[in-house]
Amino acid sequence: MNIAIPLFDGFTALDAVGPYEVLSRLPDARVSFVANAPGPKRNDKNSLALLAEVRFEDAPAPHVVVVPGGPGVRAMLEDGQLVGWIRAVHPTTVWTTSVCTGALLLGAAGVLAGLEATTHWLALERLQEFGARPAGRRVVVQGKVITAAGVSAGIDMALALAARLAGDDVAQAIQLGIEYDPEPPFNAGSPQKARPETVALVRAVATARDRRSSP
Amino acid sequence: MNIAIPLFDGFTALDAVGPYEVLSRLPDARVSFVANAPGPKRNDKNSLALLAEVRFEDAPAPHVVVVPGGPGVRAMLEDGQLVGWIRAVHPTTVWTTSVCTGALLLGAAGVLAGLEATTHWLALERLQEFGARPAGRRVVVQGKVITAAGVSAGIDMALALAARLAGDDVAQAIQLGIEYDPEPPFNAGSPQKARPETVALVRAVATARDRRSSP
Repeated sequence: MNIAIPLFDGFTALDAVGPYEVLSRLPDARVSFVANAPGPKRNDKNSLALLAEVRFEDAPAPHVVVVPGGPGVRAMLEDGQLVGWIRAVHPTTVWTTSVCTGALLLGAAGVLAGLEATTHWLALERLQEFGARPAGRRVVVQGKVITAAGVSAGIDMALALAARLAGDDVAQAIQLGIEYDPEPPFNAGSPQKARPETVALVRAVATARDRRSSP
Repeated sequence: MNIAIPLFDGFTALDAVGPYEVLSRLPDARVSFVANAPGPKRNDKNSLALLAEVRFEDAPAPHVVVVPGGPGVRAMLEDGQLVGWIRAVHPTTVWTTSVCTGALLLGAAGVLAGLEATTHWLALERLQEFGARPAGRRVVVQGKVITAAGVSAGIDMALALAARLAGDDVAQAIQLGIEYDPEPPFNAGSPQKARPETVALVRAVATARDRRSSP
């Protein structure tokens, strides 16, 4: 089973590596990091570089696609090459998935039209630009399309996907293998649960970042 | 604040990237991936490569060290260079931490002698080889040393560390930023919670892998 994870500069590392860690443990998984121009792709903090090793043209028919998000999504929405690849491969995938604002790239490729979908809570309303219905759940399954909420939600999404691909026994073994028995030290992981000051702080930091990166 | 994450071939990707995603969001964080010989370091599945960009000798005094684990730990225990670097920097760190079997490398560097510590559940008893007392908790804090259980536990560890470094408000904002409100699809993330068949399966897969990689 071929699993393709596209990378681009400005991606969020955990968006890609969370699902990777789960899906790469499937018994017959062959995971590739793909890009228009292979090479190191730097994350949104610029301090991490993951190698993309396969060209889009050499990954024409992946069974599973996992599109990460991050501030670099904005440039990818303008660039068109990644979106074009998603549009080209989606008809023959078994599952097309996204984490965080990777959903906006699925949206731009036309994948989400008429579907419920989720993304990072800060970007949820933007899904409507692509004809999707924003759903505030952590993992949203619609036919063969799965969208996950922000960053860490990709781990939950990938375990749910692993169960669909290989059965509950295998998915549970993967969960135990990565000892995924979360104990967050705070109850602050969603805007409904965090304190209003925390929500305001995260919103302000994101707004400042977006302003800096505007042309 | 300088945060150093050593990499080596055969590391487990999420061990490194989980804490990275949290700690890199601290306001004054400068995170470096360090190695004896910089360049791409391939993970335990060989399908992911993360760039190490700083030599050990150029990271002589990090404030925070996060040592990931993975099957590659075995070779690192024999190689000695990573262990030597941990031994050299530990006296001046503010926090020395590990994820998963990275704890064995801390142990080999003498960091865990007389301390409680944790690691991946499959390796827990091995901590005694280094004079540590195995503790089955997910995150174990002992003075300035923090060890985390397997793979995904590094995210919980890093959030607890972020709170100690920058306060609860910042740690909660990071948790909300990465939308860490976990919803594992199964209750199988620890050997106490998983079904006995699942525990046996994961143990068998790990034993087979260790046999294959033995000299």
